[in-house]
Amino acid sequence: MTEKSVVESSSLHRSELHTSISDPVLDTMNFLNEITLRYPEAISFAPGRPYDGFFETDEVLAHLRRYLDHLADRGASPAQVRTAVYQYGPTAGQIREIIADSLRRDEGIDVPPESIVVTVGAQEAMLLVVRALIRDPRDVLLVSSPCYVGITGVARLLDVTLRAVPEPAEGFSPADLDAAIRAERAARRRPRAFYLVPDHANPSGSTLSAAARAELLELAARENVLILEDTPYRLVSPSEPLPTLKALDRRRSVVHLGSYSKTIFPGARVGFAVADQTVTGDDGRTGLLADELAKIKSMVTVNTSSLSQAVVAGALLAAGGRVSELNAKAAGHYGDAMRRVLDRLAERLPEARRAELGVRWNEPSGGFFLSLSVDFEADDAALVRSAEQFGVIWTPMRYFHPDGGGRRAIRLSVSYLSPEEIDEGITRLLAFVADQTGRHRAGRGRRR
Amino acid sequence: MTEKSVVESSSLHRSELHTSISDPVLDTMNFLNEITLRYPEAISFAPGRPYDGFFETDEVLAHLRRYLDHLADRGASPAQVRTAVYQYGPTAGQIREIIADSLRRDEGIDVPPESIVVTVGAQEAMLLVVRALIRDPRDVLLVSSPCYVGITGVARLLDVTLRAVPEPAEGFSPADLDAAIRAERAARRRPRAFYLVPDHANPSGSTLSAAARAELLELAARENVLILEDTPYRLVSPSEPLPTLKALDRRRSVVHLGSYSKTIFPGARVGFAVADQTVTGDDGRTGLLADELAKIKSMVTVNTSSLSQAVVAGALLAAGGRVSELNAKAAGHYGDAMRRVLDRLAERLPEARRAELGVRWNEPSGGFFLSLSVDFEADDAALVRSAEQFGVIWTPMRYFHPDGGGRRAIRLSVSYLSPEEIDEGITRLLAFVADQTGRHRAGRGRRR
Repeated sequence: MTEKSVVESSSLHRSELHTSISDPVLDTMNFLNEITLRYPEAISFAPGRPYDGFFETDEVLAHLRRYLDHLADRGASPAQVRTAVYQYGPTAGQIREIIADSLRRDEGIDVPPESIVVTVGAQEAMLLVVRALIRDPRDVLLVSSPCYVGITGVARLLDVTLRAVPEPAEGFSPADLDAAIRAERAARRRPRAFYLVPDHANPSGSTLSAAARAELLELAARENVLILEDTPYRLVSPSEPLPTLKALDRRRSVVHLGSYSKTIFPGARVGFAVADQTVTGDDGRTGLLADELAKIKSMVTVNTSSLSQAVVAGALLAAGGRVSELNAKAAGHYGDAMRRVLDRLAERLPEARRAELGVRWNEPSGGFFLSLSVDFEADDAALVRSAEQFGVIWTPMRYFHPDGGGRRAIRLSVSYLSPEEIDEGITRLLAFVADQTGRHRAGRGRRR
Repeated sequence: MTEKSVVESSSLHRSELHTSISDPVLDTMNFLNEITLRYPEAISFAPGRPYDGFFETDEVLAHLRRYLDHLADRGASPAQVRTAVYQYGPTAGQIREIIADSLRRDEGIDVPPESIVVTVGAQEAMLLVVRALIRDPRDVLLVSSPCYVGITGVARLLDVTLRAVPEPAEGFSPADLDAAIRAERAARRRPRAFYLVPDHANPSGSTLSAAARAELLELAARENVLILEDTPYRLVSPSEPLPTLKALDRRRSVVHLGSYSKTIFPGARVGFAVADQTVTGDDGRTGLLADELAKIKSMVTVNTSSLSQAVVAGALLAAGGRVSELNAKAAGHYGDAMRRVLDRLAERLPEARRAELGVRWNEPSGGFFLSLSVDFEADDAALVRSAEQFGVIWTPMRYFHPDGGGRRAIRLSVSYLSPEEIDEGITRLLAFVADQTGRHRAGRGRRR
């Protein structure tokens, strides 16, 4: 064997790897990370991180202790308490009763613990549900677009066909989903499920109205398409949110996905799926969709960290199951930040100026994000110019459109900035927008 | 809408789900769990659980505190320490330096931290590596057979073609792998990687010899097939194990998979992959395979729990990076248990009786498992009879053969039993074996 062949044997070509299967959405997110590292002094409206100012590291120890005491109070021996933290746990999770209790108190969702699967964040829950429901190449996953990159990622990972249902600026319309389902069936494909974030969506910030919720549930039941309802921002909402689709679901049309990353802490990586759908086998035996998810989970992560589950359970116990109350301060923080961003935008861009620049934005009632439409291509080049010359970073909305939309829109995240950063950031952002709009129009003028 | 259609809309048929894609290996594992629940009084040689008798719950708190102090000692502010536990962390992990250091001290594996991806146990690491390497339907994953069900599960989850390379009782032979690679290529498929557990394998208990290690590395480099080396039982070995394939790897032919589930604690769910292979893109830019794994991980679990990583890091720091020393007591326990099982078998089945019954077993130098061949069909019916009438449970070896082998062999796990349970369990097992062999021969006699 020559030295050359030795070196060659150690090298892979990217085209041979599954990661070479191109996905414009995910590829560009890496670019955003690069920009953030390259311009550390820029004020960034990009990251959707929860604010950690209300967190004390020692809380983790207290939560863990509380859960262990809870087990002991319920009759567990010291050896059993040790096993609960130390060992592999049940694949579907060991804190399902506590989660079920919290869902009843907080969300009016009344499901048996057996219908819950505890996951490594909502991301793993998405993976499990999509893997369970998509069996063959005819099967299609529908998503509202713009949509969260996590679901796009799962589709890419599993080579699942994704169909985007465009969501207009005024909010998602069930009639558009209906049309998409019909078009897929006409093309001999099987629409299996529809993914959306009904409350304070990432990236758009929009919330589904009560009427649209009812209509969507009717549609899902009629067309036998499951709704995958993702809910990360609900319980850090500054005001009482609308009922979840799952709370309104009378026909088990909804798989509810939950995350404790915004409400307890992201470092735990604990989320869950509620999948109370009945599954019938050839032999007539029935089980729950949750059982099928657990089977898949055994091949992905085996089980969710017992330690993380213990800490999350301790936090839920501390709050008497009410995550909303646990998060009153955080919800206030996010509400204030959103209000401040909207106020600054309104003050600094009066109606006339707004019309002149062709700028509009929505007014989310909560959550981490809002969207701003502009009169120029909000692309990577514009982002680099914004970061370099104006010291402000944002996310091109096109990153969230699997269908190629959102070219003239940007996402602003409000969750992680101080009031002072918001004020200065909006000043910088509007200076950039004005300048870029002018350049764009001058360019358009020259091309005429 | 009628009441009937309402009910229908809530029900799924199992044949529509991905989990209906049959896999005899995994389906039967559920049967084993059922048996274990149905006969709680039986002594079980089935579960491969680590022994938790040396674990103190409070250690977790001490490990966490130690890691936080370590961060502070290295100049992190209290806010940075808080963020390290609270927030989402880097996708590839935040304790890679500490793991790299430990791999150097414990295993003589010298790799840069950038080549490590921290995962939710070795299971997620397998998923990431297989997903990265298997791009299209021509690609094939090779496994030694019998093999660990975790890798079979990943192949099933990702619809990956698996080819079993049978491992004879005397141990795995690289020549068989060579032949399998040639056969796959002749069938116009692309063998991409070969998975094995070189030390104290699950399920067989066998260990690859030094000569076979060298030969396997040569073969992998020559044929450009990566080796996926899984290593859960090495550092709880009662004696000094042979060098890992990765430590011997001069051509980056080996992706090393590690787990802290047997060495620190399973409840953390922390493992890792070492993937220092160079990946070259169309544009000539190079990166590491680890970077590609991290991209995939962002779609599976986003990142491994910061809390779990912190606790594992604290344990590694406590041991000065030497997991082997941390586990001296546990390794002694497992070594004693294996010795005791082998001694009881030898005592109670002298050579003559062994030959008469047609029973043989291997003598693993460590690990959790050994295999026993018998002269009857070791199937589900035999297992039920063993549990019900003899009060002893074991795992049919056929569960671990994707190619349908192992019909007359059983796996015994020694990790979780007390000395008294071992003695009594072996007595019961041999009574069952004698009885079942007699029945089997009587049946065979009648059929003649």
